[in-house]
Amino acid sequence: MGKILIFGHKNPDTDSILSALLMEKFDKNLGFDVEAVRLGNVNKETQYVLDYLGIEAPRMIDEVLDGQEVVLVDHNEFAQSVNNIENATITCVVDHHRICDFKTSAPLYYRAEPLGCTASIMYKKYMEENIKIERNDAILMLSAIISDTLLFKSPTCTEEDVKIAKELEKIANINMEEYGLNMLKAGTDLSDLTADELITLDSKEVMLKDVKAKIAQVNTASIPDMLKRKSELENSIANTVNNEGLDLFVLAITDIIESNSQVIVLGKRADLVEKSYNVKLVDNTAFLPGVVSRKKQILPILTENA
Amino acid sequence: MGKILIFGHKNPDTDSILSALLMEKFDKNLGFDVEAVRLGNVNKETQYVLDYLGIEAPRMIDEVLDGQEVVLVDHNEFAQSVNNIENATITCVVDHHRICDFKTSAPLYYRAEPLGCTASIMYKKYMEENIKIERNDAILMLSAIISDTLLFKSPTCTEEDVKIAKELEKIANINMEEYGLNMLKAGTDLSDLTADELITLDSKEVMLKDVKAKIAQVNTASIPDMLKRKSELENSIANTVNNEGLDLFVLAITDIIESNSQVIVLGKRADLVEKSYNVKLVDNTAFLPGVVSRKKQILPILTENA
Repeated sequence: MGKILIFGHKNPDTDSILSALLMEKFDKNLGFDVEAVRLGNVNKETQYVLDYLGIEAPRMIDEVLDGQEVVLVDHNEFAQSVNNIENATITCVVDHHRICDFKTSAPLYYRAEPLGCTASIMYKKYMEENIKIERNDAILMLSAIISDTLLFKSPTCTEEDVKIAKELEKIANINMEEYGLNMLKAGTDLSDLTADELITLDSKEVMLKDVKAKIAQVNTASIPDMLKRKSELENSIANTVNNEGLDLFVLAITDIIESNSQVIVLGKRADLVEKSYNVKLVDNTAFLPGVVSRKKQILPILTENA
Repeated sequence: MGKILIFGHKNPDTDSILSALLMEKFDKNLGFDVEAVRLGNVNKETQYVLDYLGIEAPRMIDEVLDGQEVVLVDHNEFAQSVNNIENATITCVVDHHRICDFKTSAPLYYRAEPLGCTASIMYKKYMEENIKIERNDAILMLSAIISDTLLFKSPTCTEEDVKIAKELEKIANINMEEYGLNMLKAGTDLSDLTADELITLDSKEVMLKDVKAKIAQVNTASIPDMLKRKSELENSIANTVNNEGLDLFVLAITDIIESNSQVIVLGKRADLVEKSYNVKLVDNTAFLPGVVSRKKQILPILTENA
């Protein structure tokens, strides 16, 4: 059969890459022949973690063969997964998102919890199986939690994530706040990316009822700095909307220091954003105070109003 | 908000009723305000267990209100769940089936494992949370395992189910084989059921690709005895096919002693059974040696050939 492949979603974020690595160790411990891989480029935030630990990124793959055994971490929707996922054999999923557009023909392991981050569930799995959490593992877990919760400031962050992070901080033996802020800031250095790269860096295709949408997010330490590239970003978004037949594209530019977002919105259903947040788009953009979480503050609200 | 309701699938089998009761205790232990309920009549096998322990069946419900918080055990497909499930808030699923026709708008707890029975997963959850398994709990778990695995003879039975059952046998302090056979036999006394009741007793509606099908199963200690009612059963099945617009209805009459099944098949896609098992239906029926498990030996094979 060959190795079972483990991967997070397309346009991988830190949790997707690191949880795949954590799952690889977990499954090897249980005697499985597995390999962590990734479905896209490593972003600078994730690279900061890998460099900090002196470890390599998993290799990149584009598609899987029919019947390939796979483990999904940090996602379950097929639109966000590897090409040809429909014909793969999914043996296991570990995730913290809603379940949608997911099906199998056979029973499988599925572990989802409504926590801030997949790596928090990995922590629980390690504990349940009595797998020792080494310093490196702790830093991987902690980095993913800090990334997904924006240093515990996102509304997706739960008490359990905070509790787990505190345990991990002891094992990691680092200053969590200082390390976390450096990691997040490393991720906001996007100056060398093209507009096309910026809008696909952390982008998810979703169905909001019958509205075909993409919701992309970039983290920044300064919204005005990012808005200097607004017309360039609008061009890229307009092309994507046309080429992919989207009804809606939302780019959330999220200020990780102040915890707000500026959105750039295009597509024939841009009205959905106006209706959902009771705002008026001016030149395709609006400021959404306090909004930082796609999962908690964007997807459910848009879905409800679609 | 009111109580969170916990239930198994429609036409509940022993695992669906008992796992709901086990989950009720589990969630109460964690401080949740929950109530186990059921979506249909208690069959004689399940009643044997309830009588043995002197406990009441959960109350029956038909539908849930919009926004009702629910926990699903032993199923996830909406077609098998409570009426109006689409508008309920599913907070948790514990199951051992494939995932299909299931979606949520928010993250949730989802725990699936490819084990023989939901109650085996409940055992693991009790252990993980250090919830004491009392003698009654052990008998509930053991009964569900014996029921779903036909006393460990079904191909759905895993090594882990057997290991768990052996642990439970000690706590239950009963002779597992003797108790189990009595329980299974109690379930085969179907003489007072009408043909309509027989074909709905343990019946699941499924989509086999684009084939709308119902797969029903009755356990028996004697296939010839059951076949005395063949024409009566065929009439009921034909009515169901017409009334519900089904493409296929398969009734598996399963000999729990010898581990074989006789199927009665109607519907315009009856050819699917012939193709899948390389048999010829004679008078709508065929003998399938060694076939006892809908999940492992019927559903995937029919799906593959659909």
